[in-house]
Amino acid sequence: MTDTLKRLAEVLESRKGAAPDSSYVASLYHKGLNKILEKVGEESVETILAAKDAAASGDCSDLIYETADLWFHSLVMLAALDQHPQAVLDELDRRFGLSGHAEKAARSDSDTQQRR
Amino acid sequence: MTDTLKRLAEVLESRKGAAPDSSYVASLYHKGLNKILEKVGEESVETILAAKDAAASGDCSDLIYETADLWFHSLVMLAALDQHPQAVLDELDRRFGLSGHAEKAARSDSDTQQRR
Amino acid sequence: MTDTLKRLAEVLESRKGAAPDSSYVASLYHKGLNKILEKVGEESVETILAAKDAAASGDCSDLIYETADLWFHSLVMLAALDQHPQAVLDELDRRFGLSGHAEKAARSDSDTQQRR
Amino acid sequence: MTDTLKRLAEVLESRKGAAPDSSYVASLYHKGLNKILEKVGEESVETILAAKDAAASGDCSDLIYETADLWFHSLVMLAALDQHPQAVLDELDRRFGLSGHAEKAARSDSDTQQRR
Repeated sequence: MTDTLKRLAEVLESRKGAAPDSSYVASLYHKGLNKILEKVGEESVETILAAKDAAASGDCSDLIYETADLWFHSLVMLAALDQHPQAVLDELDRRFGLSGHAEKAARSDSDTQQRR
Repeated sequence: MTDTLKRLAEVLESRKGAAPDSSYVASLYHKGLNKILEKVGEESVETILAAKDAAASGDCSDLIYETADLWFHSLVMLAALDQHPQAVLDELDRRFGLSGHAEKAARSDSDTQQRR
Repeated sequence: MTDTLKRLAEVLESRKGAAPDSSYVASLYHKGLNKILEKVGEESVETILAAKDAAASGDCSDLIYETADLWFHSLVMLAALDQHPQAVLDELDRRFGLSGHAEKAARSDSDTQQRR
Repeated sequence: MTDTLKRLAEVLESRKGAAPDSSYVASLYHKGLNKILEKVGEESVETILAAKDAAASGDCSDLIYETADLWFHSLVMLAALDQHPQAVLDELDRRFGLSGHAEKAARSDSDTQQRR
C-alpha cells in the first residue's frame, strides 16, 4: 500500500519556505490557511459530484482522481498546521483497533501458536 | 506507517451485507450513497472549522479527530462504490513519483549493489 | 415577490436570548457559531445532492426544500453575527444594478418626462 | 426589501441561450450543472470561512460579500433547473407562517377594522 502518505508528508514538509512560484504547494502555503481550506472544501464537493456520477455511469475514474485531490489537500492542510498524517492514522487505528501492534497483541492472547 | 488504510478497507468490505443495525458502517450502507456523501460533506466542513480553531488556539486535537472522520467517511464512500483506497494512493504516487517501485527503479540507477 | 426574508430576519432576531429549548433557532444560537456553520455546510451539500437527483429525475421538490434549508441557515448565521439580510440583497443589487433607485436613475436617462 | 431576488431571477432567465462568452452566467450555463454546483459548494465554504473571520475580527464586510456569492450561485442553480426562487420563499413562508396572505388572514381575525 503504504508509505505513500508518509512520503507525501515529507515532500510537503520540504516545500515549506520555498519561493511561492516554485511549486503548487509552495504557492498554497504562501496564500495561507484560508486558501488551503477553500481547496479542501472544493475538492470535497468535486468528490461528492464524482461519486454521484460514478453511481450513475459505473465509471469511477473521476471519483478516484477527485478523492486523491481531497486527500492531497487535506495533507497540505495538516502540513500547514505542522501536523503529520500519522496522527490521523493513529486516531483511525485507535477507533478500529487496527494497528499492527494492537492486532498482534490481540491475536497473541488466543492463538499465538497458529500465528507462525 | 500504514497498513491502516488497507486494513480499514478490509473491515469496511466485511461489513457489506450485514444487518443495518449491526454497526455504524452497516447502517450507512443501508441508508445509501446520498447519506454517505452527506457525511463526507459534513466532515469536510467540521475539518475546516477545526483547522480555523486550531490556527487560533494552537490546539490541533480536534483537527486530527475531524480529519480522521473525513478520511473514514471517504473510505466508506469508496467501499460503497466498490473502490479500494489503493487506487487513490496509486493516483497520488503517480502524481508525485513516490511509489516504492518508482523509488526502487530510481535508486537502482546508482546503488543497485547496496540495495540488498 | 416579497418581504419573506425581512420578516424571517425579524423572527430570528426575536428568538435571541430565548431559552435554548424554546425553539430550534434558540437551540442553534445556544450551541454557537460553529454549529450554525456546520448546518450551512450540511445544507449546501444536501442542496447539491438534491440538484443532481432533480436533474436525473425531473422532480425538483427536494431541491426546493433543501435550498430553503440552506437559505434559512444562512439567515441564522447572519443573525448570529448581527447582520441583516438586507445587506446581502444590497450587495446583489449593487452588482447587478437591480435596485429600485438604480433602475429609476437608469430609466430617467431616457424617460424622465414619463416618470412624473 | 426585496424584489431583488425576483429581478435577479429575471436577469438569470434572460441569459439562457446566450453565447457562452457573453456573460459570466452564460458561461456557467454552458459549463453545465456540475460546474454550477461546484460554485455553490465553493461559495458555501468561503461563506463559512468569512463567518469565522468575522467572529474573530468584528468586520463583516467579507461575510456579506460571500453570502451574496452563495445566494447568487444558488439562484443560478435554480434557474439552470428551471425553478424560480419564489418556490423557495413560499417554502420558507409555509414553514414560518410568514406569508402576506397568512399574515393578513391572521390579522383579520382580530383587527379587521384597523387594517384600512
